[in-house]
Amino acid sequence: MNAQPSELLRQAQTLSETVTSPIRGSHKVHVAGSRNDIRVPMREIVLTDTPAMFGAEPNAPFAVYDTSGPYTDTAFTADLVAGLPKLRAKWIEERGDTELLPSRTSEFARRHAEAALLADVRFPNLPKPRRAKAGANVTQMHYARQGIVTPEMEFIAIRENQKLDALHGNALAQQHPGQSFGAAIPREITPEFVRDEVARGRAIIPCNINHPETEPMIIGRNFLTKINANIGTSAVTSSIAEEVEKMVWSIRWGGDTVMDLSTGKYIHETREWIMRNAPVPIGTVPIYQALEKVGGAAEELTWELFRDTLIEQAEQGVDYFTIHAGVLLRFVPLTAKRVTGIVSRGGSIMAKWCLAHHKESFLYTHFEDICEIMKAYDVAFSLGDGLRPGCIADANDEAQFAELDTLGELTDIAWKHDVQVMIEGPGHVPMHLIRENMERQLDKCHEAPFYTLGPLTTDIAPGYDHITSAIGAAMIGWYGTAMLCYVTPKEHLGLPDKNDVREGIVAYKIAAHAADLGKGHPGAQARDNALSKARFEFRWEDQFNLGLDPDKAKEFHDETLPKDAAKTAHFCSMCGPKFCSMKITQDVRDYAREHGVDEVSALNEGMAEKASEFRDHGSRIRQKV
Amino acid sequence: MNAQPSELLRQAQTLSETVTSPIRGSHKVHVAGSRNDIRVPMREIVLTDTPAMFGAEPNAPFAVYDTSGPYTDTAFTADLVAGLPKLRAKWIEERGDTELLPSRTSEFARRHAEAALLADVRFPNLPKPRRAKAGANVTQMHYARQGIVTPEMEFIAIRENQKLDALHGNALAQQHPGQSFGAAIPREITPEFVRDEVARGRAIIPCNINHPETEPMIIGRNFLTKINANIGTSAVTSSIAEEVEKMVWSIRWGGDTVMDLSTGKYIHETREWIMRNAPVPIGTVPIYQALEKVGGAAEELTWELFRDTLIEQAEQGVDYFTIHAGVLLRFVPLTAKRVTGIVSRGGSIMAKWCLAHHKESFLYTHFEDICEIMKAYDVAFSLGDGLRPGCIADANDEAQFAELDTLGELTDIAWKHDVQVMIEGPGHVPMHLIRENMERQLDKCHEAPFYTLGPLTTDIAPGYDHITSAIGAAMIGWYGTAMLCYVTPKEHLGLPDKNDVREGIVAYKIAAHAADLGKGHPGAQARDNALSKARFEFRWEDQFNLGLDPDKAKEFHDETLPKDAAKTAHFCSMCGPKFCSMKITQDVRDYAREHGVDEVSALNEGMAEKASEFRDHGSRIRQKV
Repeated sequence: MNAQPSELLRQAQTLSETVTSPIRGSHKVHVAGSRNDIRVPMREIVLTDTPAMFGAEPNAPFAVYDTSGPYTDTAFTADLVAGLPKLRAKWIEERGDTELLPSRTSEFARRHAEAALLADVRFPNLPKPRRAKAGANVTQMHYARQGIVTPEMEFIAIRENQKLDALHGNALAQQHPGQSFGAAIPREITPEFVRDEVARGRAIIPCNINHPETEPMIIGRNFLTKINANIGTSAVTSSIAEEVEKMVWSIRWGGDTVMDLSTGKYIHETREWIMRNAPVPIGTVPIYQALEKVGGAAEELTWELFRDTLIEQAEQGVDYFTIHAGVLLRFVPLTAKRVTGIVSRGGSIMAKWCLAHHKESFLYTHFEDICEIMKAYDVAFSLGDGLRPGCIADANDEAQFAELDTLGELTDIAWKHDVQVMIEGPGHVPMHLIRENMERQLDKCHEAPFYTLGPLTTDIAPGYDHITSAIGAAMIGWYGTAMLCYVTPKEHLGLPDKNDVREGIVAYKIAAHAADLGKGHPGAQARDNALSKARFEFRWEDQFNLGLDPDKAKEFHDETLPKDAAKTAHFCSMCGPKFCSMKITQDVRDYAREHGVDEVSALNEGMAEKASEFRDHGSRIRQKV
Repeated sequence: MNAQPSELLRQAQTLSETVTSPIRGSHKVHVAGSRNDIRVPMREIVLTDTPAMFGAEPNAPFAVYDTSGPYTDTAFTADLVAGLPKLRAKWIEERGDTELLPSRTSEFARRHAEAALLADVRFPNLPKPRRAKAGANVTQMHYARQGIVTPEMEFIAIRENQKLDALHGNALAQQHPGQSFGAAIPREITPEFVRDEVARGRAIIPCNINHPETEPMIIGRNFLTKINANIGTSAVTSSIAEEVEKMVWSIRWGGDTVMDLSTGKYIHETREWIMRNAPVPIGTVPIYQALEKVGGAAEELTWELFRDTLIEQAEQGVDYFTIHAGVLLRFVPLTAKRVTGIVSRGGSIMAKWCLAHHKESFLYTHFEDICEIMKAYDVAFSLGDGLRPGCIADANDEAQFAELDTLGELTDIAWKHDVQVMIEGPGHVPMHLIRENMERQLDKCHEAPFYTLGPLTTDIAPGYDHITSAIGAAMIGWYGTAMLCYVTPKEHLGLPDKNDVREGIVAYKIAAHAADLGKGHPGAQARDNALSKARFEFRWEDQFNLGLDPDKAKEFHDETLPKDAAKTAHFCSMCGPKFCSMKITQDVRDYAREHGVDEVSALNEGMAEKASEFRDHGSRIRQKV
């Protein structure tokens, strides 16, 4: 360790158990790849046997995609000062196209690495930055286009394969295939399929070479729909551990990536702590920090300052940058008559700059320079929608679509450099205008992954915008959006607390999974089936544990039937012990089994003796429970 | 008053202020109709002026559809023992086709009216029941088909007309018309349009002649999308006031109808209290009470007992009955291979009965007899989907659609009797299978209104099923479902408490409004626009009050910026006082206004002096705040 931990650093080593205990009813497992350092984490939910009443059978453990990182692994002890294990370090190194630099390239970063005043908040084990060797391109897209299958791609292929349906899902999928709107999800995700999708630009793998701690994941519409959670320091932060804990909390509930939207004094230092402890890709909006550096005066921003900020963050390991390069001078007046004008912070910063200087934005004029930086670290573009609609009235307007078309042109330029790109989307859109957003994006941006904020399907529910937007998110996800940026209940009103983050993430996991079902993602339905089977068989604990939030499900159940006995009772609080529809279904099944389905169908013919037989049988069953 | 109030009755007179205070920032107003006893209640939200910074203008008060009844009227004092004013009594009486009976017709009801033991829980002012004169048909459908526009229809026409858009909505609606899937919503709802829709069976007005307290409302896809909230006593009830309060709480948040799913000892008495104090239509599932009467043994149900129950409830004033008459004997075996079998309580009761007796259900064989009862009181059918899917795997299967087709045949029979009908729908359906449900229902049930439970779009989120289902509800509402039955966060887990009811209702108001926007319901967007304008202009209180839950919006805002001053501050907690995108938009607008839009468009040409001018101007504005 390079520095003596101060009180703040000492605190930093302690994460609360609420974020590190294994998720209820599950434990970490790893699936091995072709080399012994490819070990793909999954979360295995252990299931109980089907009770005798429903035909006594074992239920195999159920493995689910897991974003929670090593934190939920009982074999792992978190040490924030050490940071996470550098899972990808060897893969990056052995490619031989990068070099370690003696110190950070960014002037700002160097100043901050040296300032004595920052010793108390600085991450003590600052890693040396890595950069592409001169002339090298180290993006996953570049490798993919060379035909190279990287360990990251293989890791992802293993991670993306969903359990195929052990129950009725396969028959069902044949009967009712998903409606995929042009997506072509194979039955089995292979490393080669991953490579091909990345090479085409239809998917991205955000994985900066300076973020070897990340567990590789992919964003593209032929893969599982992903979600992003935003976190950010407020001006007054009680401890760095608290900031890291927000990130760990977000991935615990299912955040696939986390955007750090911090502002304030220790923005650089906080980011370092987050990067070193994040097993998921981290995204940022560099213009926010750049604005801080000029004291909030947008017109004082310069390319040079912005460039230094990009390099500063790229060398910390940020995996994707939101860049609002599509806010062109001529689009700005198109927003003047909107109900809510420009609502994107990045968009309004750039609009202000453009008007003040009466010039095209430096993000646009220096776009190829930015590409050069991106490819030296493998930072992916998230091309920002600075002119996205901020209300229903402004949806799908000229300003929005003018910018989207420009983002398509920028995509072409980035791809010329083999730089990975996704495209940000709205915002606020009524249901009937959602599909046009997706279709236009696919067309103009050549199938680069779409990454939308909701959209909110109405403006009239402040306090519930995780719901107004989960509706739009599920729909646009079904139509083909690859990643959904969550919205919390506090949207438009205030800063989300821990519970808001959890509510927002779970709402978005619902939207993403509903989208996967709608698209007919192979195996997505297996979890629904496993949970519904558990529900039918009154395996309460299994029902809780197969859900997206086992803790809340159990808590809700216990409010009505708090006794432990109730968790094994073969009835639920809705109908009570006297009458139970599940039980009657079981009567029907037993009857069908005992008599053969043909005989049951013959019920229609009218054989009275069967009726009395069933009556006796039914009564017997009723007495059993 | 017929009886001396006991302690329970004394309690019954007191409703807590949480359900009777006016909804934040609004007061009750009434719109007059063609006769002085047609006074349509609305809730008027008073708005503040636009601040000088955004162009100082007054904002007219905004009237919204109001389900909360007289309770939120400061001119009204609730007296549960007296019951609500009998708004429709004169309308019913002056039609001259009904008569007052000396006592209740149902044997069960008579016994309960006389039992001394029930004196403490019985509604003391039992009204005499009213019934159609011999040979008369008193349904709104019957009147409509005679060409009669009833006062109920006129009331509804006034109530349904939404404020047309004062802002940009009209232009927007022209540019992006709603996608209505065959619905044809006129720009102005007239009494004649209401009559015509009811005559065709495309809409229903649930209004039993024994429920004169109800404020008329309509359910049909060419009207505003409605929502239903379920309430129900648990076995142990602390007081009758508490039960009534649940109903009042539900309508406060926007329940258009309430289903009373009570079970337990005082089911008949509790229902009377609810009816006499309900300003919204009340629905029930009579088979639940019938089952109680036979001690829970489904096979012991008889037509005679069920008939008595229908009459008992019809004479109390229940406005619609869920009747599971489509569960036919031959459909039952179709459910044997499902993952979750039969999940509807009503459906499983009838399935059990059919199997036990090996006969077609008495609901089906006596369907015309039921119609005779319905038309003597104007009770509407809600034809129950007893075989609805209980999980994703069972969606759109043979059992479900076989029953739906039968419901279509029953609709024809009911319409032959001029009895109003709506059709219940699922349940659990993945997104890509939702539309088929709506299209098949419209086709097979001849456009009778569809009334769906959700549907839930995934099974994997117990604890969040208000969200999984709000997604499906919004979509199916957009496709044409007329009423959405809410789902609370406790679905599948336990009994909803007050907060769950609020969460469920608001989630469904969101779904219903999103559907109205999607369909292009004239004027629906005005509220979104008014709220978004308030949001843009930092009129915080107006933003809260225009929302579906002003209390929660304010509470969330106050958590971050608790001081009263912040409610008039021209910034919000997301960006802070230093940088604000709304302010920059205002800069853009001011600039556009001062220079003319053409001049702003000329920005592209590159006039440097304008740039410095804007820079000065922008700085000036920044200093003002």
